[in-house]
Amino acid sequence: MKNLRDILPGKVSTDAEELFCYGFDASSMEGPACAVVRPENSDDVSKASAFAFEHNISLIPRGAGTGMTSGAVPVKESVILSLESMNRIVEIDEKNLIAVVEPGVVNSQFQKALEQRGLFYPPDPASMDFCTLGGNVAENAGGPRAIKYGVTKDYVLGLEVILPDGKALITGVKTHKGVVGYDITKLMVGSEGTLATITKIFFKILPLPEEIMTLLCIFNDLDMAAEAVTKITGSKIIPRTLEFMDRETILAVESYKSIGLPKDAAALLLIETDGQPNSVSKDTEKIGAICTSLGAKVSVADDVFSRKRLWDARKAISPALYRISPSKINEDIVVPRSKIPEMLGLLRNIGQKFNVKIVNFGHAGDGNIHVNIMTDKNNVEEYQRAESAVKDIFEATLKLGGTISGEHGIGLTKAKYLSMELSPLSISLMKDIKKVFDPRGIMNPGKIFV
Amino acid sequence: MKNLRDILPGKVSTDAEELFCYGFDASSMEGPACAVVRPENSDDVSKASAFAFEHNISLIPRGAGTGMTSGAVPVKESVILSLESMNRIVEIDEKNLIAVVEPGVVNSQFQKALEQRGLFYPPDPASMDFCTLGGNVAENAGGPRAIKYGVTKDYVLGLEVILPDGKALITGVKTHKGVVGYDITKLMVGSEGTLATITKIFFKILPLPEEIMTLLCIFNDLDMAAEAVTKITGSKIIPRTLEFMDRETILAVESYKSIGLPKDAAALLLIETDGQPNSVSKDTEKIGAICTSLGAKVSVADDVFSRKRLWDARKAISPALYRISPSKINEDIVVPRSKIPEMLGLLRNIGQKFNVKIVNFGHAGDGNIHVNIMTDKNNVEEYQRAESAVKDIFEATLKLGGTISGEHGIGLTKAKYLSMELSPLSISLMKDIKKVFDPRGIMNPGKIFV
Repeated sequence: MKNLRDILPGKVSTDAEELFCYGFDASSMEGPACAVVRPENSDDVSKASAFAFEHNISLIPRGAGTGMTSGAVPVKESVILSLESMNRIVEIDEKNLIAVVEPGVVNSQFQKALEQRGLFYPPDPASMDFCTLGGNVAENAGGPRAIKYGVTKDYVLGLEVILPDGKALITGVKTHKGVVGYDITKLMVGSEGTLATITKIFFKILPLPEEIMTLLCIFNDLDMAAEAVTKITGSKIIPRTLEFMDRETILAVESYKSIGLPKDAAALLLIETDGQPNSVSKDTEKIGAICTSLGAKVSVADDVFSRKRLWDARKAISPALYRISPSKINEDIVVPRSKIPEMLGLLRNIGQKFNVKIVNFGHAGDGNIHVNIMTDKNNVEEYQRAESAVKDIFEATLKLGGTISGEHGIGLTKAKYLSMELSPLSISLMKDIKKVFDPRGIMNPGKIFV
Repeated sequence: MKNLRDILPGKVSTDAEELFCYGFDASSMEGPACAVVRPENSDDVSKASAFAFEHNISLIPRGAGTGMTSGAVPVKESVILSLESMNRIVEIDEKNLIAVVEPGVVNSQFQKALEQRGLFYPPDPASMDFCTLGGNVAENAGGPRAIKYGVTKDYVLGLEVILPDGKALITGVKTHKGVVGYDITKLMVGSEGTLATITKIFFKILPLPEEIMTLLCIFNDLDMAAEAVTKITGSKIIPRTLEFMDRETILAVESYKSIGLPKDAAALLLIETDGQPNSVSKDTEKIGAICTSLGAKVSVADDVFSRKRLWDARKAISPALYRISPSKINEDIVVPRSKIPEMLGLLRNIGQKFNVKIVNFGHAGDGNIHVNIMTDKNNVEEYQRAESAVKDIFEATLKLGGTISGEHGIGLTKAKYLSMELSPLSISLMKDIKKVFDPRGIMNPGKIFV
């Protein structure tokens, strides 16, 4: 790594502590980093890439390491390209509703900068206070608002990326439309760092909705909550969020943070509508009526404070569950939303079959359920049962017309399941596409494909 | 072609008239078809593809042939795969807001089927009464509503395609979310038939907006109309459509169809808002006030009949201009919308410089201007001047941060300009991606790349 230090003086570290820290991510897996590079601009990324290319060393672009599928964890000695210093919001073009950012900008910082100008960037992964936009693009991050506003991919107009050999490539457009050649932009989004390193992002942005209204709907019957999801989306209202927590999730959050959620509830829905004030009240009223008719206790969080409290509860789910079960298995399946009641039933059966505790929450509005199998890696026998349960869960998901990942990606942890969803032909074409961009296979190896 | 007839009895034609007709498209270019195949299902497409692959014959999937860049015109002896008989709406899943269609379904028929169920598929190219959804996907078609609702790509969740060797590939998901492997779906959308043949489309659909309001704003100063576009989009209202016609366009439409547009106007804007009734009237009021303050005469088309009349005028533009100038050159540049006034000025200068008449209309709201150079192919000297003007127009567009095609694609007519917008690296990567899917180069050759 001596040469790399000469090429990027002051930006390369091989300190044992750093290598240890950058060998981890939020998935709590770990792997061997051999150097951490902190580029300050595209040119630095280019130099580091050219070095790795020449010496045939693996390269892992990394944001904040909040991914859930070990996307940033090395499977062999790798140079970690930590993009945390490339964190400038380059431009917010209010007239054209376009923003240009570097990959290291934290999602919520971008959101705040936009909100101050009456603008809006919808994708809001639960880790938005920590995760970076580059990581969001690499993983095609979603979040609660996806039901109405779509996912990261829907907002990326163009990119600057550095190919593994160090060459810079501009993809896409800086306008709201464009059909010139193949869509390399959308190919990059969600490619999990396996094709190139993202160094600049051109986002489409929106005007900030005038009003938001938040409903908390408490059910004492899980099936009724699931039924409410189907009824709401079937009623042709598209809420801004339609989040779901089951009883175990509520209890975990309460014991972690004492927010005041009802501990005796079977499930709750956290529903928001947004838009012009009149539409918002009308939609909220309709949704409230649907939930009430299914036996829910409905309350409106009508001020910023009580709304924040509810969203704090939502964001606390993941840490709360990790505290109970540090090696829990966290999947993020999607089923057609009308199949949510059926899927929840199947999850119950699978939990019983393998004698594992399964806790469910997530973005019910778009059929995206975060399925958490509460297990302990140190209990080898239990962990094996949990892993068998995962296979059954994916089988059930696919049988209902779903997908094994809604927003976490495949990374390392799901690579072995890829062939359950994709045909050998599809996987082989994807591998050939990877070769087009990364002929030496140095970009984030071992991810997506086994 | 004898063998092909044996493989697909009754579905192959080599009649001279048919070959002639299927050698054309709306771009009025022509080329040599050697057989027309009318598959009735994916299996037929597969058989025809395998035949073409084995014999190394070019294959051109074709919808209704309404494309503007000769995407369906053969450059050498080709088998035309006309998908017009694969025209079934397979499923409309109201609960999950997903529809499954075959590629030969006509856009407006799909729209009507959805509207009857209170559902909505936004992409609305001007040719929607004739063009097919397969063609729309192949070209990533846009339309007036793109300003608010995006383009075809934003609604394609998954595809069934037949690769050139006859193998079937399923891409994407049947849910509203999914991040499993690379996004081959979005790579196919807009690939202009150069990668594979689309045989089934999984669309995301929306609830039908409750109300629509239509405004006609008449300006006696072109610059004021352009200014209004910037002011409306800058006011953080996103209308459903924001269409623009200049004086020459108005006159052409009136002489073609006598709809009653004001012949003495310098320009007009056709603006719609949609949503819940209250929001719609509020937005309409704001937009009306902006236009009035810029000197426009504003009227509301508040019934279905007068709204239809205005949209008939909009849809008549293309045939009206073709009647005046059958070999007009029709470009569809996009500039950041705040640059529209500047671009219109540049277009005026370019028209003067080359002494050609330039007529402009289009989707001003997303910066997408249809620039028409009114010329006659038989007048060789004038046609050359027109072609030189095109180059200047593209140069000006790119200088303003725009793109040379917003929705028509590259096809044959723009292939020679591709390198003005894309770098050699970008083009070379795209060609390598084509090789992954089409190693023998039989899929719609000569398109996109020269």
